[in-house]
Amino acid sequence: MSELGIVRRNIKRADRALVDQLSRFGVATVHEAFGRLGLMKPYMRPIYTGTQVSGTAVTVLLHPGDNWMLHVVAEQIEPGDIVVAAISAECCDGYFGDLLATSFKARGARGLVIDAGVRDVKTLTEMGFPVWSKCISAKGTVKATLGSVNIPIVCAGVAVEPGDAVVADDDGVVVVPAAYVQKTLDAATARDANEGGKRAKLESGVIGLDIYEMREPLKKLGLRYVDE
Amino acid sequence: MSELGIVRRNIKRADRALVDQLSRFGVATVHEAFGRLGLMKPYMRPIYTGTQVSGTAVTVLLHPGDNWMLHVVAEQIEPGDIVVAAISAECCDGYFGDLLATSFKARGARGLVIDAGVRDVKTLTEMGFPVWSKCISAKGTVKATLGSVNIPIVCAGVAVEPGDAVVADDDGVVVVPAAYVQKTLDAATARDANEGGKRAKLESGVIGLDIYEMREPLKKLGLRYVDE
Amino acid sequence: MSELGIVRRNIKRADRALVDQLSRFGVATVHEAFGRLGLMKPYMRPIYTGTQVSGTAVTVLLHPGDNWMLHVVAEQIEPGDIVVAAISAECCDGYFGDLLATSFKARGARGLVIDAGVRDVKTLTEMGFPVWSKCISAKGTVKATLGSVNIPIVCAGVAVEPGDAVVADDDGVVVVPAAYVQKTLDAATARDANEGGKRAKLESGVIGLDIYEMREPLKKLGLRYVDE
Amino acid sequence: MSELGIVRRNIKRADRALVDQLSRFGVATVHEAFGRLGLMKPYMRPIYTGTQVSGTAVTVLLHPGDNWMLHVVAEQIEPGDIVVAAISAECCDGYFGDLLATSFKARGARGLVIDAGVRDVKTLTEMGFPVWSKCISAKGTVKATLGSVNIPIVCAGVAVEPGDAVVADDDGVVVVPAAYVQKTLDAATARDANEGGKRAKLESGVIGLDIYEMREPLKKLGLRYVDE
Amino acid sequence: MSELGIVRRNIKRADRALVDQLSRFGVATVHEAFGRLGLMKPYMRPIYTGTQVSGTAVTVLLHPGDNWMLHVVAEQIEPGDIVVAAISAECCDGYFGDLLATSFKARGARGLVIDAGVRDVKTLTEMGFPVWSKCISAKGTVKATLGSVNIPIVCAGVAVEPGDAVVADDDGVVVVPAAYVQKTLDAATARDANEGGKRAKLESGVIGLDIYEMREPLKKLGLRYVDE
Amino acid sequence: MSELGIVRRNIKRADRALVDQLSRFGVATVHEAFGRLGLMKPYMRPIYTGTQVSGTAVTVLLHPGDNWMLHVVAEQIEPGDIVVAAISAECCDGYFGDLLATSFKARGARGLVIDAGVRDVKTLTEMGFPVWSKCISAKGTVKATLGSVNIPIVCAGVAVEPGDAVVADDDGVVVVPAAYVQKTLDAATARDANEGGKRAKLESGVIGLDIYEMREPLKKLGLRYVDE
Repeated sequence: MSELGIVRRNIKRADRALVDQLSRFGVATVHEAFGRLGLMKPYMRPIYTGTQVSGTAVTVLLHPGDNWMLHVVAEQIEPGDIVVAAISAECCDGYFGDLLATSFKARGARGLVIDAGVRDVKTLTEMGFPVWSKCISAKGTVKATLGSVNIPIVCAGVAVEPGDAVVADDDGVVVVPAAYVQKTLDAATARDANEGGKRAKLESGVIGLDIYEMREPLKKLGLRYVDE
Repeated sequence: MSELGIVRRNIKRADRALVDQLSRFGVATVHEAFGRLGLMKPYMRPIYTGTQVSGTAVTVLLHPGDNWMLHVVAEQIEPGDIVVAAISAECCDGYFGDLLATSFKARGARGLVIDAGVRDVKTLTEMGFPVWSKCISAKGTVKATLGSVNIPIVCAGVAVEPGDAVVADDDGVVVVPAAYVQKTLDAATARDANEGGKRAKLESGVIGLDIYEMREPLKKLGLRYVDE
Repeated sequence: MSELGIVRRNIKRADRALVDQLSRFGVATVHEAFGRLGLMKPYMRPIYTGTQVSGTAVTVLLHPGDNWMLHVVAEQIEPGDIVVAAISAECCDGYFGDLLATSFKARGARGLVIDAGVRDVKTLTEMGFPVWSKCISAKGTVKATLGSVNIPIVCAGVAVEPGDAVVADDDGVVVVPAAYVQKTLDAATARDANEGGKRAKLESGVIGLDIYEMREPLKKLGLRYVDE
Repeated sequence: MSELGIVRRNIKRADRALVDQLSRFGVATVHEAFGRLGLMKPYMRPIYTGTQVSGTAVTVLLHPGDNWMLHVVAEQIEPGDIVVAAISAECCDGYFGDLLATSFKARGARGLVIDAGVRDVKTLTEMGFPVWSKCISAKGTVKATLGSVNIPIVCAGVAVEPGDAVVADDDGVVVVPAAYVQKTLDAATARDANEGGKRAKLESGVIGLDIYEMREPLKKLGLRYVDE
Repeated sequence: MSELGIVRRNIKRADRALVDQLSRFGVATVHEAFGRLGLMKPYMRPIYTGTQVSGTAVTVLLHPGDNWMLHVVAEQIEPGDIVVAAISAECCDGYFGDLLATSFKARGARGLVIDAGVRDVKTLTEMGFPVWSKCISAKGTVKATLGSVNIPIVCAGVAVEPGDAVVADDDGVVVVPAAYVQKTLDAATARDANEGGKRAKLESGVIGLDIYEMREPLKKLGLRYVDE
Repeated sequence: MSELGIVRRNIKRADRALVDQLSRFGVATVHEAFGRLGLMKPYMRPIYTGTQVSGTAVTVLLHPGDNWMLHVVAEQIEPGDIVVAAISAECCDGYFGDLLATSFKARGARGLVIDAGVRDVKTLTEMGFPVWSKCISAKGTVKATLGSVNIPIVCAGVAVEPGDAVVADDDGVVVVPAAYVQKTLDAATARDANEGGKRAKLESGVIGLDIYEMREPLKKLGLRYVDE
């Protein structure tokens, strides 16, 4: 309503130093550290594998088959941002290609997360500009209808505010609101430290039943062992 | 009706020299140059990435779970062709594997576009025979029912005539009717030349809003900038 | 019913030596050799390509969003097993990650086949622990509800008994009941030998219509050739 | 290309009297009579059940999220037409509601077939204006981009020419090119007559194995009967 | 393997009297009574609502686009049976229409459960022959390939043996192995009796938190109440 | 994070009188009046047709396969509320049946909107308790894990705050934040009044091209009329 056709400038971003530290952890760890919240739907896939990145969200709401607002959001990018794009209805068109990627990269964007399609994926891969998207499609878009930039959006099932922390890797995309970045970072650090010891034990053949002391609660619930 | 159980020989193909030039451009460029038409649905994906190919369509209509006509179409392949296969109803079976690929390749086919499944994808990748398909499936097929070869078909949402130009890469598959190949080639060449200059500007940090003079029309439509 | 909350130990596995030989053949060949049966639905995809593996099934039935039984099944793994996991309803959560993979690998598992999601796919790839799954998702799971281990399950459309032979590669996953492994191995060996000769002919340009003597039956069914 | 932004007037329609007779038969019968061709994908469903209708196709190509051309096509409707609408990429938006239905009905349209979404379905049902669509969605559309009217389109997997015969009922939608309507009508009439006798036999308990003399061919293929 | 091309006659059916009593309960109750097992995937929907039926399974395995075996299974139907049909790969074709329904009904079948498509749904509804299917499609099928009758199959995710009890209503389809019918019937009866009292309490405004004494366990897990 | 395991009581609801007036309009009108925002994805369908309802949102976040929190939310229902339920990952299980419906109805709930499955749909229909859901499934759920009540959620692609206005009918579900209800009501009223006059004109055969004065802008964009 009042939200359509506006561009919010000078948004408050999550603390850059903290957000940058989040990239040390994978999406699975950050998602667990943030209380198993904030994860986008699993149809969001990277166009090429092997990237692990964190940044601050610059958001944009577009309409089906119309990528005009991606040019508008380009101007609002600051180094360290990740553009997060939602569409007002499901659409697989190719909203983003190598020219926009060149522009986003020049502005300092670390990647794009878009609940729609992208194209020129071979060139994007060669450029090393990572994108997480719902589809890959060469389908062209028009530039006819206003959307908005830096408003709250829902992208792939997750509510995203401008300035939120975004972490993305081969497992998907997770969003952490600015106010929870410090806590999430602490929890991720603790979780990570804790996992190191477990990994060594598991490698030696000790099993989770013993490490996590699961035998007793399983027995209480009635788990029975039967020999063939 | 009269179309079932026939094989059209000696079809008229789009001009080979022109079709070959189309492979210099990606699918996204050709699709734009052809007026944003002719693009197959985005579920059509290459079994391996990195290939960009053009050729003339040899078409085949098959039935669910029956790949018999792929043997019939093999004989109609000329060097420079791409086989385009439609199924009379949705089916993900593995219609095509390494033996048929060996045959198609020996006949000079540059690839296969099939609105169904393929198998032996590891071997196809090693052979360097590119396939764009809806699925990967080891499911075997029978050889029991007549289809047709070189009739007009609909493949992944696009009407294809025998002899049409087909371009395929990591972004998908586009089909250009023979009569439009020259015009499309000209438009693609112009578009490509035009993009070079833009890319340089965008790399330097100039944004699309200025390059494409979008600020004025956006303002007229009511786009407002708000500072937080 | 009586099947819930039990762990069958000391299951009877298909003959290890025979199962190991199955890995020489791809899934497509084994599926054909087994009478075109036993193939899981094509949505089951490897998290990385290039692996071809066979093993004996250790089965587990889990519930939506709950991976507790994966810890229970770990103890039942013997070297040469492949864990096959079904969920009591469709779910894409990330049931399995690098810690469980470390444990499964230490126990001698050759891979995991799961009708749900997995996470930490980058690490799993680096570890070389192959997984065939329905999705990739970082979504965490709980440990609250009993399932069962080594009971008959249905995984991705295929009925699997503990101890069955499992073969998986880039084309998908096929399951062969223990009683049919020898026969299937024989048929696969015969089929493979037979294909070698055909491949050479096809490479030389002879087509399937002649190799398989299809011209006569096609003509009888009414196939007509028409010159444009 | 030359096809975008044009409206073809005074198209040649299939013979009205013949098309009207097609409505006596269900879609299944017409589809069989037309050689098992022309059937749209099964995701095309009626918004309410119980209608069986035939008419001549007036076609329209629209873009994602943009229903402008539905106003343009309205003027080209003649009594007895069915509007067949394709979108240049997949979209579930609600392109059509009660106001457009009022207009289409006033112009004499017998229904709408649209490879996208519709809204106001309760009112459309009360009005008795039948629609076959991919989805039901209240999502509004814009009016910004040119499409075309009465050009060849692909709708739900079927190539449709303006003036083709369209038959729709609870089983789906089938399209018969103008040139095949007479033949299809004859075949449908014959098929229908033939089925009457079979139905009586089947009701009396005689089975298809005997009526269609299937026992011999099944036996030849190797069908074996085993008593438990 | 040995399973293809055979028809098992004189199968052992679950006790008819017990199976008939199951129809008093809905699918949800029977599924709960059978330990939350045996439920087909939720894409299995009735072609018309309001039917609640139970019967003994006669099974059939068909191939994509081929309904020949439905004629073979017809002969094996006994009064009180429900035909359960699986396809060897996913297929939405219209395998079953009004003629086969006439035959099945004359043989005493109570319904059809098919993991594929059906057609003539308007006539089937008028006949009162209930079908649960994956899709509705007028697409015709061929009669060319052998399948099998009364072998174990997997239908919509559930393993079904010939003679198993099948219950179907507007909530879906559940399968109970013959050996568990008595126990399931007892559990369903107990559950149903138990629900009557709860319903009355809930109608009076008492809530489940109190009826099921959930407040304490929720509190123990840490549930906190906060006033705005 | 802090959001898990809490129940917010005494939430501030949108003005009841205003919300009640919204039910006079269909979802399509309210969605347009609210600037084409707030619409849930079109997979949300009513379990029976013909209901048009508005109410204030009571929200609940559940986990896959676990419906415990539906008992907790029951206590927070006030007359005139609609329960809006999200799941932390995609799940089609049957979270809600006739007993919970009895309880919700007794508490004054006007309906349920759930991004998952429901069961007992025949009884719910007889009770007249409307539900909009993603699926229908008899699959039972457990009661093991804490979720939260009356926290902000994302349901079927829309961010919902406790107390928001919800309108649902045969076209789907739309959510209007409390702060926008008055404006949306005004816009819906205006739109509705405006449509009355148009409907009369359209009924008389005047077409939208003239009523909305579209001929000029279409001509400017280049629309051409061609006579066959």
